[in-house]
Amino acid sequence: MGEKKGKGRVLRLALAQINSTVGDLEGNAVRILEYVGRARKLNADLVVFPELALTGYPPEDLLLKPRFVRENLRVLRELAGKVKGISACVGFVDRKVDIYNACALISEGNIVDIYSKCHLPNYGVFDEKRYFQSGGAPAVYEVGGVRVGINICEDIWYPDGPARTQSIGGGAEVIVNLNASPYDVEKPEFRRKMLANRAADNAVFVAACNLVGGQDELVFDGRGMVFDPEGVLLVEGEPFVEELLAVDLDMELVFHRRLHDPRRRELERSYQDRMGEVRKVTVAGAGIGKARAPLPPAEKTSFPIEEEVFRALCLGTRDYVRKSGFKRVLVGLSGGIDSSLVAVIAVHALGKEQVTGVFMPSPYTSRESIEDASALAESLGIETLTIPISDIFQDYLKSLEPVFAGRSPDLAEENIQARIRGNLLMALSNKFGWIVLTTGNKSEMGVGYATLYGDMAGGFAVIKDISKTFVWELSEYINRREGREVIPERVIQKPPSAELRPDQKDEDSIPPYRDLDPILKAYIEEDQDLEEIVKLGFPEETVRRTMELVDRSEYKRRQAPPGVKITPRALGKDRRMPIINKFT
Amino acid sequence: MGEKKGKGRVLRLALAQINSTVGDLEGNAVRILEYVGRARKLNADLVVFPELALTGYPPEDLLLKPRFVRENLRVLRELAGKVKGISACVGFVDRKVDIYNACALISEGNIVDIYSKCHLPNYGVFDEKRYFQSGGAPAVYEVGGVRVGINICEDIWYPDGPARTQSIGGGAEVIVNLNASPYDVEKPEFRRKMLANRAADNAVFVAACNLVGGQDELVFDGRGMVFDPEGVLLVEGEPFVEELLAVDLDMELVFHRRLHDPRRRELERSYQDRMGEVRKVTVAGAGIGKARAPLPPAEKTSFPIEEEVFRALCLGTRDYVRKSGFKRVLVGLSGGIDSSLVAVIAVHALGKEQVTGVFMPSPYTSRESIEDASALAESLGIETLTIPISDIFQDYLKSLEPVFAGRSPDLAEENIQARIRGNLLMALSNKFGWIVLTTGNKSEMGVGYATLYGDMAGGFAVIKDISKTFVWELSEYINRREGREVIPERVIQKPPSAELRPDQKDEDSIPPYRDLDPILKAYIEEDQDLEEIVKLGFPEETVRRTMELVDRSEYKRRQAPPGVKITPRALGKDRRMPIINKFT
Repeated sequence: MGEKKGKGRVLRLALAQINSTVGDLEGNAVRILEYVGRARKLNADLVVFPELALTGYPPEDLLLKPRFVRENLRVLRELAGKVKGISACVGFVDRKVDIYNACALISEGNIVDIYSKCHLPNYGVFDEKRYFQSGGAPAVYEVGGVRVGINICEDIWYPDGPARTQSIGGGAEVIVNLNASPYDVEKPEFRRKMLANRAADNAVFVAACNLVGGQDELVFDGRGMVFDPEGVLLVEGEPFVEELLAVDLDMELVFHRRLHDPRRRELERSYQDRMGEVRKVTVAGAGIGKARAPLPPAEKTSFPIEEEVFRALCLGTRDYVRKSGFKRVLVGLSGGIDSSLVAVIAVHALGKEQVTGVFMPSPYTSRESIEDASALAESLGIETLTIPISDIFQDYLKSLEPVFAGRSPDLAEENIQARIRGNLLMALSNKFGWIVLTTGNKSEMGVGYATLYGDMAGGFAVIKDISKTFVWELSEYINRREGREVIPERVIQKPPSAELRPDQKDEDSIPPYRDLDPILKAYIEEDQDLEEIVKLGFPEETVRRTMELVDRSEYKRRQAPPGVKITPRALGKDRRMPIINKFT
Repeated sequence: MGEKKGKGRVLRLALAQINSTVGDLEGNAVRILEYVGRARKLNADLVVFPELALTGYPPEDLLLKPRFVRENLRVLRELAGKVKGISACVGFVDRKVDIYNACALISEGNIVDIYSKCHLPNYGVFDEKRYFQSGGAPAVYEVGGVRVGINICEDIWYPDGPARTQSIGGGAEVIVNLNASPYDVEKPEFRRKMLANRAADNAVFVAACNLVGGQDELVFDGRGMVFDPEGVLLVEGEPFVEELLAVDLDMELVFHRRLHDPRRRELERSYQDRMGEVRKVTVAGAGIGKARAPLPPAEKTSFPIEEEVFRALCLGTRDYVRKSGFKRVLVGLSGGIDSSLVAVIAVHALGKEQVTGVFMPSPYTSRESIEDASALAESLGIETLTIPISDIFQDYLKSLEPVFAGRSPDLAEENIQARIRGNLLMALSNKFGWIVLTTGNKSEMGVGYATLYGDMAGGFAVIKDISKTFVWELSEYINRREGREVIPERVIQKPPSAELRPDQKDEDSIPPYRDLDPILKAYIEEDQDLEEIVKLGFPEETVRRTMELVDRSEYKRRQAPPGVKITPRALGKDRRMPIINKFT
């Protein structure tokens, strides 16, 4: 910014990246008021909360319960009464004849106005057209002499949406966008580029406030962003933590930029027709026009992708476990890399006192696996239990002998072992009230190389959206990050095996991961077909087999526990495939 | 009709209620052509197929695969080339810039025109706004001198939708509605009333052709309906069977009725603006204006609700099993009513040779249960296997003894038994390639009175949407229907028990079913709150406890197998509740 810094009106804006819990209206209100207080201490003029901060996001079919909508309105009114000396934008569910995904502009104890989301996303993980009516013409508010346009999440992805109407038609100088934008590895950069364009195209400050935290299979990264009227990123919050991000916005910059934007003058009248009112909001006690101590310089954080994903997995896991009311988790340790990584994440998410590793060796468990599992547990300092499964397994075989007579061992016997382990883990879970974390990765879940009710048995599937290739990379990263072999190097190096029969290797049953993972990405995440994937350089037979395995295992995924979504298309609610499906 | 029967133009219309399979484009095309041939033999002018008959319904995220859309267009063109001597309306996915839920009007080997659905349902089990663009102004076709308006499913639920535009603005004499309307117990009567109103309001024949068959958790009842311009039901097909329903429609009745409809003349011009074109479709070889042998008189079928539901369950189960590529099923028999009912349905759906019952007695299994399970198997004539679980159970207890030391037996020990049974059934499934049917009812699934990976383990949950009360009623009905004790009377009369500990009864753990079932209906299906349900006459404590049990067991339902939807709101994709949910 440097020399362009003007001496105009300054809006001190605070973005409250908070971690709401779906349905916890009272708890969320308490948290909102806490951040209102913190923003007031910074002498901020306006504090912004995420989309549906009051209800948590996504509330899904809770929105079909009249009492839920009613209670959310009651709690909002109570909350509004306590907001003094600052204005606040709070996401909630509005009710007229229909319900709306809305933002209450609160000032001096009153709900001054309500903005309703215009563009309702209904793709990927989103189902907003299932519930909400779309909002009408957007308003612009004069908050202490600064024109502010409020809109919500999807709204700002439309170049001709409310942000443009508010900026061109309503003269907004600041666009405030409340969002609940779930994380995936590609999203932050998309979001950054899009928001920069909106700011530059409309010569307006753009400030986006995002939710933080895990909700079922989604994790929100927070990481508020503010752009100046040239589209330059002024500040970006730290991802995956709750925080209050404050910034001073100098309106002279908007005026300066608009003086030099001839396209704007071409359009103003046509956009004025689409506008609602311009309303003044008087903000008593706020610092506009007053001398305020300068804010400390904002930091822009940047992490390698492995760190981002590691944080996403830890937060998603911590929130699932804690918001479900559990304290402690169980992880079945096999000595393999998947369960090792899950145990590391659990320890980072919850603390080593809250993690119990369970060894359940069978006759096919190698000495190396026992050593590796022990080494990992020791490295993490977690409690372990050992429950051998051989006797139980023999009893199953004996009981089934009359029925299985004359048939040679196959997948059935392998799955019995996996399901004994599932039963033991669940017995511990039931007895002690601890939740089981499952350890399957996206490659296995993609091709169905997992035992339903066996290794798939548990409450949360931590690395369900992480390919095996990425499991290796994350494990290497964690060891680099910690500067020691948190995960024993041998675990990372050895060829993967389920150890359910003698000398078994994953690659006996499924294609090698170096082929499998890019094929799965092309097929599952990019909807490419056989020819297109073969053209990427993979053997046709391997591609065909992989696609068949994916199609055929839909019924397993349907009964899998949820896990943290990390990629643009996970194996969850963003991929809704029929089980009965003869398309090949 | 009687004396009103005129001597005008007569359209012979055939409705082909077929059972498509999702994704089986070639197979569905073969079936469509078979019914085209049958309709031609009846000298029908126009044969109508259900919504998306070519792709099956709902194709879900297959619609996001470009190759799926491409192949559906290729197969449609091939199919069209083979339609001669009759016109046909075939549901498929159209592709322009976006994709459309569309109907091809085919005549003399050509696709003469395409109608695109205007109103896309996005509630309940429907997600059509996830995929499709809405169609524009509808056309009306002149098929051999008769004006026919085509529209699709949801379209006709709008009183001011395409059916009205086509009738008032375009002069349509017949409205043909292609639909894929999933069955629930309340739907047929809703549908009947609504279609009657559309016919009467618009003085038009209304003919609705519906899909038949099971697709994952949905079952379609077919049961085509045709109404005359006064809204009188002319013919209704038999539910849950494929059939070709043919009817002669006399246009004189439309003219007669319209002469006496003054409101129509008020509106005509305003609706003409909304209309697309009126196009002539020449149908060579069809019988319009020719002498044709009269059709046999149509029958209107009517069944008690128990028969309808029984057929729905049988068809849903048969299609899930067969379309998944299985022949034979396994049912764990406990001697209780739920597993007895499931076995009866399986035998009706697949034949007794395709059903194996498995007894897995434990130390807590009563002598009565063993007798009752045997009596049922004998009554049905099915093969049975007996695999006692006591030894395996003892081995689990021994293995867990060091860890469980000092704690008294509780739910953990009960669940171990249920999961041993799940493991044994799955071992048989894996060894022999038979699919396991689970036996939990809606009351149990509602309150979570079921063991995840135990009795919930299996491919298809046959009675998942049937309350315990209705399980009793259906069982009594089946015995009346068959005129003998198919299900032993003692099974129906005895108090329900999971038999996982001595002298256990369901009512020790959950409220009595006479209270539980209506409370669950009010809470799950009608979104009523505590106060409202208490007002229905139930003890507050019981209502509160039931609601808590429902909320708390969402994680279990998320991992349950699919089952046939029977009520307006099942525990499947039409109820999308968050797992993490602190709303109480």
